[in-house]
Amino acid sequence: MAITDYLKLRPIGNKLEDLETPVPIIDIDVVERNVTRWQARCNTLGLANRPHIKTHKLVGLAQYQIAQGAKGITVQKLGEAEVMANAGITDMLLTFNVVGPKKIERLAALARRSDIAVVADNREMIEGLAAAGKSAGRAISVLVECDTGAARNGVQSPAAALELAQIIEKTAGLKFGGLMTYAGTGQREQTEDFLVDARDRCTRAGLDVHTISSGGSPDMWKDEGLSQLTEYRAGTYIYFDRSLVARDTCSFEDCALSVLATVVSRPTSDRAMIDAGTKALTSDLLGLEGYGVSHALGDAKVYAANEEHGYLDISKLLQKPAIGDLVRITPNHVCPVTNLFDEVVFVRGETVLGAAKVDARGLVQ
Amino acid sequence: MAITDYLKLRPIGNKLEDLETPVPIIDIDVVERNVTRWQARCNTLGLANRPHIKTHKLVGLAQYQIAQGAKGITVQKLGEAEVMANAGITDMLLTFNVVGPKKIERLAALARRSDIAVVADNREMIEGLAAAGKSAGRAISVLVECDTGAARNGVQSPAAALELAQIIEKTAGLKFGGLMTYAGTGQREQTEDFLVDARDRCTRAGLDVHTISSGGSPDMWKDEGLSQLTEYRAGTYIYFDRSLVARDTCSFEDCALSVLATVVSRPTSDRAMIDAGTKALTSDLLGLEGYGVSHALGDAKVYAANEEHGYLDISKLLQKPAIGDLVRITPNHVCPVTNLFDEVVFVRGETVLGAAKVDARGLVQ
Repeated sequence: MAITDYLKLRPIGNKLEDLETPVPIIDIDVVERNVTRWQARCNTLGLANRPHIKTHKLVGLAQYQIAQGAKGITVQKLGEAEVMANAGITDMLLTFNVVGPKKIERLAALARRSDIAVVADNREMIEGLAAAGKSAGRAISVLVECDTGAARNGVQSPAAALELAQIIEKTAGLKFGGLMTYAGTGQREQTEDFLVDARDRCTRAGLDVHTISSGGSPDMWKDEGLSQLTEYRAGTYIYFDRSLVARDTCSFEDCALSVLATVVSRPTSDRAMIDAGTKALTSDLLGLEGYGVSHALGDAKVYAANEEHGYLDISKLLQKPAIGDLVRITPNHVCPVTNLFDEVVFVRGETVLGAAKVDARGLVQ
Repeated sequence: MAITDYLKLRPIGNKLEDLETPVPIIDIDVVERNVTRWQARCNTLGLANRPHIKTHKLVGLAQYQIAQGAKGITVQKLGEAEVMANAGITDMLLTFNVVGPKKIERLAALARRSDIAVVADNREMIEGLAAAGKSAGRAISVLVECDTGAARNGVQSPAAALELAQIIEKTAGLKFGGLMTYAGTGQREQTEDFLVDARDRCTRAGLDVHTISSGGSPDMWKDEGLSQLTEYRAGTYIYFDRSLVARDTCSFEDCALSVLATVVSRPTSDRAMIDAGTKALTSDLLGLEGYGVSHALGDAKVYAANEEHGYLDISKLLQKPAIGDLVRITPNHVCPVTNLFDEVVFVRGETVLGAAKVDARGLVQ
């Protein structure tokens, strides 16, 4: 099956000029290349590939990633898991603590119809997870989230990881599934030290550390610190973005998604105003200057943005875009961009293929 | 009619604890007070009140604002105008250049069924607007957008304003409607100079300057530079937000909207992790530190945020929130927050009233 077979595209003509802007457009050939290349690397390394679908939120792309060899998917919230389960995807890891009675009920319902695994980094939430497992009639696999340097969620030491693993293992309705971390960029070495220590403690205590899962697109090509992992979670790699070009993870040619915008005003010779502001590009900076760039216009920057206004710096351009011209803006961070739109448009080069509903955005918490 | 009569609320129980987080919750009494207070000021000043609905995107609140005395509404894109026209609102000003053949068709359709006025800041777009007016069979009112210091859209001088006004006035399908600006904060004086000069040039040339429209919540209470205006556009004032508290436009008690979040992890004594990240709070900083604050927790800051993770600084709290606790985060900038959610929840104090669909978000460009 071709990648287009997984996407149920709504026909909308085949011309870029006929699209309403602003709209994210995604080059399907680049997506295919990004997915294939990363899967090949995981295969070579013997790493289970568990792509994070928070980047695209599309059922069709999740199915395509699995068809290309991904073991399953990663989701960040129950709503995403529910949408993917509705589409028949069963092997999921939810990498965000499930807390609160309503969410526990939803987890139980998901556990009845899928092989969802979850994470935990504290004992207070174990009771809730156990209730979900008991209600579902099967032991839910729980990975212990470790804070290996990112200073986000996670137990703070290998000893604490073992302690929580033992609590999970002896709790009815749950089983200990292994270790999980989100390593900060450039923190692979300290991450490996933490995980190896935690794993060895668990093994010595007689626990089976089935999975050791880390993630992150920024360091996806780096070989250091991978040898102890069984699984890798990358999300952004399917589309890539300007922040990952800046980090040398990819080139601009690997950026599958850009936001198509229209030049609506040319108040001065230095400034073109476009109809993509923070409600299309977001205000994520990730350490960069500006809100995105037009690669075709010599990496001209969107140097400022209001909700619907983008300010494009055209001061250095010999050929300046005219009012009505379309420009493609590569966003700093692609994941929150797709989350803003009900639909995205797939293209092949300059040819529009059709629109796809962003299945897992919006109401689904 | 009470404000609740305008909102078609979907019943969802009456307890905050039963809500799925993260979710924006809006205190209806604060909304009512904010709307009433601003309308009273406009009445006193003799200024037409034309609230910008980009903040709430709710048909019911637009209708309520009009019922309280607003002359009409401001919209920022055709999709917003279409949703409001569908609900029977006819007096609209679209303060964003309409460019491109498909958008012109949509404008024509809107002009047939509403009294929509638009803006222009360049002659290249006039032909399109004229086509819409001719197609609709009526002259569309066009205000000349002036760049009075914000360095965004707008003609660059009063002379250029007159030139464009004359072009509009003599174009079939259009009529000159007046002057429009978005004055940057603290730029009222230079704005007034520009507008008075442009108005006088137009008047001397025999043009009727029907409307002089400016906007912006930050300076809404300041008296300087208002005397030449006929109309004011404020949007954020209906909910207010942390950025406007920081600018002394309002107090925290005037902030109607907060994002209800759950504490999901307490990795250290300094840090509570909540389930509201940039996909709930946005990454708009507006010059502030952090992504929002919990006023009830001594203005504890969300000092960092990833897509679904918010990092709450609890280092200074004697009573630290526990896992499972609900916290209300006042966002930096409220307008892009409502744009992230399909539904918002209205409350009165601690009592949930119901959920409202965010009518004009998403697909509508």
